[in-house]
Amino acid sequence: MSDPQTKDTPIRRFVPPPRAGGGDGSAAYRWEAVDLLAYKADAASPHRDVTRQTLFRRDDLAGELRYFEVAPGGHSTLERHAHVHAVLVLRGRGRCLVGDRVHPIREHDLVTVAPRTWHQFRAAPDAPLGFLCLVDAVRDRPETPDARALEVLHADPRIADFLVGR
Amino acid sequence: MSDPQTKDTPIRRFVPPPRAGGGDGSAAYRWEAVDLLAYKADAASPHRDVTRQTLFRRDDLAGELRYFEVAPGGHSTLERHAHVHAVLVLRGRGRCLVGDRVHPIREHDLVTVAPRTWHQFRAAPDAPLGFLCLVDAVRDRPETPDARALEVLHADPRIADFLVGR
Repeated sequence: MSDPQTKDTPIRRFVPPPRAGGGDGSAAYRWEAVDLLAYKADAASPHRDVTRQTLFRRDDLAGELRYFEVAPGGHSTLERHAHVHAVLVLRGRGRCLVGDRVHPIREHDLVTVAPRTWHQFRAAPDAPLGFLCLVDAVRDRPETPDARALEVLHADPRIADFLVGR
Repeated sequence: MSDPQTKDTPIRRFVPPPRAGGGDGSAAYRWEAVDLLAYKADAASPHRDVTRQTLFRRDDLAGELRYFEVAPGGHSTLERHAHVHAVLVLRGRGRCLVGDRVHPIREHDLVTVAPRTWHQFRAAPDAPLGFLCLVDAVRDRPETPDARALEVLHADPRIADFLVGR
């Protein structure tokens, strides 16, 4: 929540990644005047190879639009919260857990994460997964699963496979 | 403003347009369970060849995400309003007027339309212009320019050229 407010510059250009990506995470989609941030510098939120960019955040806008990019083989934090996530996949492909279902997702698919629903995004082994995520500017903090919640999730073999990246 | 609320379906898949578009506007980007609407069935809002799809609209979301697609050579209404537009170009290329400047825009560029700023989007003659537009769910109605405002806009030759599609 410490991102600077996006400025009033009317146009901020897309900066396509270099064709020959170094595989070091530097080849994420980028935009002029948008900072690339590590996704949650928080040891309590396990994740792998995810970056976050706030594309639109303004005092006079009730929603906030962020871009997350998960590197090939990486994943976002498994979490839930009261606020809704409205997601559009912008790049690549992967899978997502929403509640008790795992879904394959690819470019331009829409994902709705309803309130209090466990969710996680995983990139394919050989492709990044970049997605736009619309949230309310005013929202609650995510919660990660405790041992009991993890046990319940792992009881479903399809969810268990997803959670370990199978 | 009469769109149905988008449903709780967690995944709505992107439906890529057929490769050989008929050139009749039917080749817009589409999504499962998202209605394709004519953009403003209102004679007072001049526009050409624009469709609108509401991708995310829910009672528990403060923002609303729409997708507009302007067919090659078409344009949106010239208008302004108190609410902000936060735009990401999803497809194609064209130009936009924001305030007193005309900007070329292409895939994934970001456009911010600040409050009370005249704006219009035009597709290239040979390419569509499809863009996501984030707005507040609660917002004011757009205003179109009266004769005096049009005169002021046309006094700038670059704006005048843009407004007639040159």
